[in-house]
Amino acid sequence: MSKQIKKVQFEGYTYIDGGVCAAKGFKASGTYCGIKKSEVPDGNESPFKSKNDIGMVVSDSLCSAAAVYTQNKVKGAPITVTKNNLTKTGGKARAIIVNSKNANTCNADGEQKAARMCELTAEALGIAPEEVIVASTGVIGQVLPIEPVEKAVPVLVKELSYDGNEQAATAIMTTDTVKKEIAVEFEIDGTKYHLGGMGKGSGMIHPNMATTLNFYTTDCNISSGALQAALDEIVKITYNCLSVDGDQSTNDMVCVLANAAAGGAEIMTGTHAFDVFKKALYIAMMNITKMLAKDGEGATKLLECHVTGAPDVENAIIIAKSVIRSPLLKCAMFGADANWGRILCAIGYAEADFDIGKVAVSLSSEAGKIDVCKNGAGIEFSEEEAKKVLLEDEIIIDVILGDGDAEAKAWGCDLTYDYVKINGDYRS
Amino acid sequence: MSKQIKKVQFEGYTYIDGGVCAAKGFKASGTYCGIKKSEVPDGNESPFKSKNDIGMVVSDSLCSAAAVYTQNKVKGAPITVTKNNLTKTGGKARAIIVNSKNANTCNADGEQKAARMCELTAEALGIAPEEVIVASTGVIGQVLPIEPVEKAVPVLVKELSYDGNEQAATAIMTTDTVKKEIAVEFEIDGTKYHLGGMGKGSGMIHPNMATTLNFYTTDCNISSGALQAALDEIVKITYNCLSVDGDQSTNDMVCVLANAAAGGAEIMTGTHAFDVFKKALYIAMMNITKMLAKDGEGATKLLECHVTGAPDVENAIIIAKSVIRSPLLKCAMFGADANWGRILCAIGYAEADFDIGKVAVSLSSEAGKIDVCKNGAGIEFSEEEAKKVLLEDEIIIDVILGDGDAEAKAWGCDLTYDYVKINGDYRS
Repeated sequence: MSKQIKKVQFEGYTYIDGGVCAAKGFKASGTYCGIKKSEVPDGNESPFKSKNDIGMVVSDSLCSAAAVYTQNKVKGAPITVTKNNLTKTGGKARAIIVNSKNANTCNADGEQKAARMCELTAEALGIAPEEVIVASTGVIGQVLPIEPVEKAVPVLVKELSYDGNEQAATAIMTTDTVKKEIAVEFEIDGTKYHLGGMGKGSGMIHPNMATTLNFYTTDCNISSGALQAALDEIVKITYNCLSVDGDQSTNDMVCVLANAAAGGAEIMTGTHAFDVFKKALYIAMMNITKMLAKDGEGATKLLECHVTGAPDVENAIIIAKSVIRSPLLKCAMFGADANWGRILCAIGYAEADFDIGKVAVSLSSEAGKIDVCKNGAGIEFSEEEAKKVLLEDEIIIDVILGDGDAEAKAWGCDLTYDYVKINGDYRS
Repeated sequence: MSKQIKKVQFEGYTYIDGGVCAAKGFKASGTYCGIKKSEVPDGNESPFKSKNDIGMVVSDSLCSAAAVYTQNKVKGAPITVTKNNLTKTGGKARAIIVNSKNANTCNADGEQKAARMCELTAEALGIAPEEVIVASTGVIGQVLPIEPVEKAVPVLVKELSYDGNEQAATAIMTTDTVKKEIAVEFEIDGTKYHLGGMGKGSGMIHPNMATTLNFYTTDCNISSGALQAALDEIVKITYNCLSVDGDQSTNDMVCVLANAAAGGAEIMTGTHAFDVFKKALYIAMMNITKMLAKDGEGATKLLECHVTGAPDVENAIIIAKSVIRSPLLKCAMFGADANWGRILCAIGYAEADFDIGKVAVSLSSEAGKIDVCKNGAGIEFSEEEAKKVLLEDEIIIDVILGDGDAEAKAWGCDLTYDYVKINGDYRS
């Protein structure tokens, strides 16, 4: 199977390369500095050296910035520091500094270290420390060594480049098996805009928050208030509809920087231009969400639950997420077993409104589509045919509630031996 | 490792044998009838014949009955029929009929079949159909074949015996690897009473409901109202503090029958006798809860999270359950990895009140105890020592909130390769 997702096309939007460097005026870099001590025993070079563990994204000019953060009450120190910075600047930022291999969370000196990362970055770039967004991902509760960061920052600044996106995208990977980048080009009133981003998974991922670390850049001209409004709306139907394992991380953040480098009029809320921009953000975030699901820890399959016929979007989201989260269904999908009773069961314990007697369920993939349940009860289907459908690596679970016009999607992955293997032996 | 739990002793209560037959005047039986068609191909005897798939419990006299049911909106037909029966009789019952291998859920003819099971049992015993409690467990969404039940009921009635508890206990097993029985003897005002029960796991188990199928019998003299009050209170701190995988079953039920066969005065709510009775119920249900956790699908370890220093019991329960449910922590425990950051993370996303800066965490087992976190931050500990503690098969996670006097426990198990194996290939 491939860990690459199959991309859906949207009219008026073109997928392009470049990730966080696709938008004009954004540079990026990444390097290895040895944040995880055990990887550099006795001062020797690590076998992991090729894997970057620290990255930087910098805009040529000051940006409007918007961010959403984990709702976990145990928050990583970088979350606190970034929040404070954006408050101080009134939603403006120039740079992002981010490390993997250590979450800098549950450490007595966490905030001090996170603030130091901002200072180091600001000094090297000649900007203010509060113009820096700082993020960390990795093991919780281990003191972050600051020396490697001190050595890395000048290197990162020196290596900043308009095509450094891959270097940064690999720096934020933890148990990810592939880097996750996206970028789209679109047009408003004759001006060409670009929006791109990068994300990291791949465990401790669950809805009801801004899941995982994700950074987006755009050359649109938009205020931080409008950017935040767009972000809040789109996160709700992309990242917050993703579940890998039901564990909500302490360090999650999604942030967007807009530097207006493409020119054009300011994009104001409530306008057509704002809708076009939001759709670009949706396309980018939805694709990264699917990448995160497909590269979920140990995953062999991307699962998409599409709930239709719901009384409203809220109920549709709750049901789609409940299905995607069920460990038993995730195991059945791993085994390519059309055990649809587990889908009904997960719908049943969702805190949502529906009439189970009207529910229909289908399973589909590139190999075909099979109806398994109508009016809340099983219907005859070919097990052989179902197996064929479920052996594919992207499975769509259609849940039709028959109770309205609203719909929603949620994304997840199967639960496999490798999830257990990865997480039974992650820290050591 | 042993799937048997280590039993805690309570003064004034003696563990005895006998399960659902430990109380006076209760008979039980179990047999194999071939409910799962695939097990009896071509009319030949099945290799699984030794595994009972249908069981019966009958009291010599009419009982006070109390029950709690799954809160899943998709309810098994037997749940609906049992509820109706207990409503009709005003909380009285004589017999239980229960099958494994088929949940009789999400079937168009489900209620009809469940009602038929009651009729067959009633006819054979010469009682009223509404005096029968019916329950089913197994695959969801497959039509229940009634012919095997028709053949089995006369056999079950014929084989009823005062020491038939094991036959019934094995009949309700699905993916359980061991049968689960408990019984205690206790005394009130010079009268000796007995309370015993049986339960089944071992997947699709999660708090906020009466988890799994569990049947208790007692020879106490107690009204169905008082019995229900005791049951509601004890389920909250036993079964509802159990999570194997976060999936809430459609068919869960816990019921208690009391036949007054031991004599003695009626046990009234608000009396000392009621407290003694409730404690017996707690001991029995807490032990079965631990058995269910330790025999959770694929489990190699029993996990107990003990939250102390909480502002109130509700908050303590929420936090204990959140810790026990975390898939990442469950994997770490499987790998005997003292990755306590995952405990803090799970505390953090619990919908509870606490000050993370005051939280302390310890891990203990028969091999010792190790402190891993104080004031919400990590403390130095010996990884070697921690490994030794975590290699045992019963692990206690102590979470001290430092914010009050309330406490609670929750139980669960590790997440292993075998959970995935069992559930990737359960139906077929």
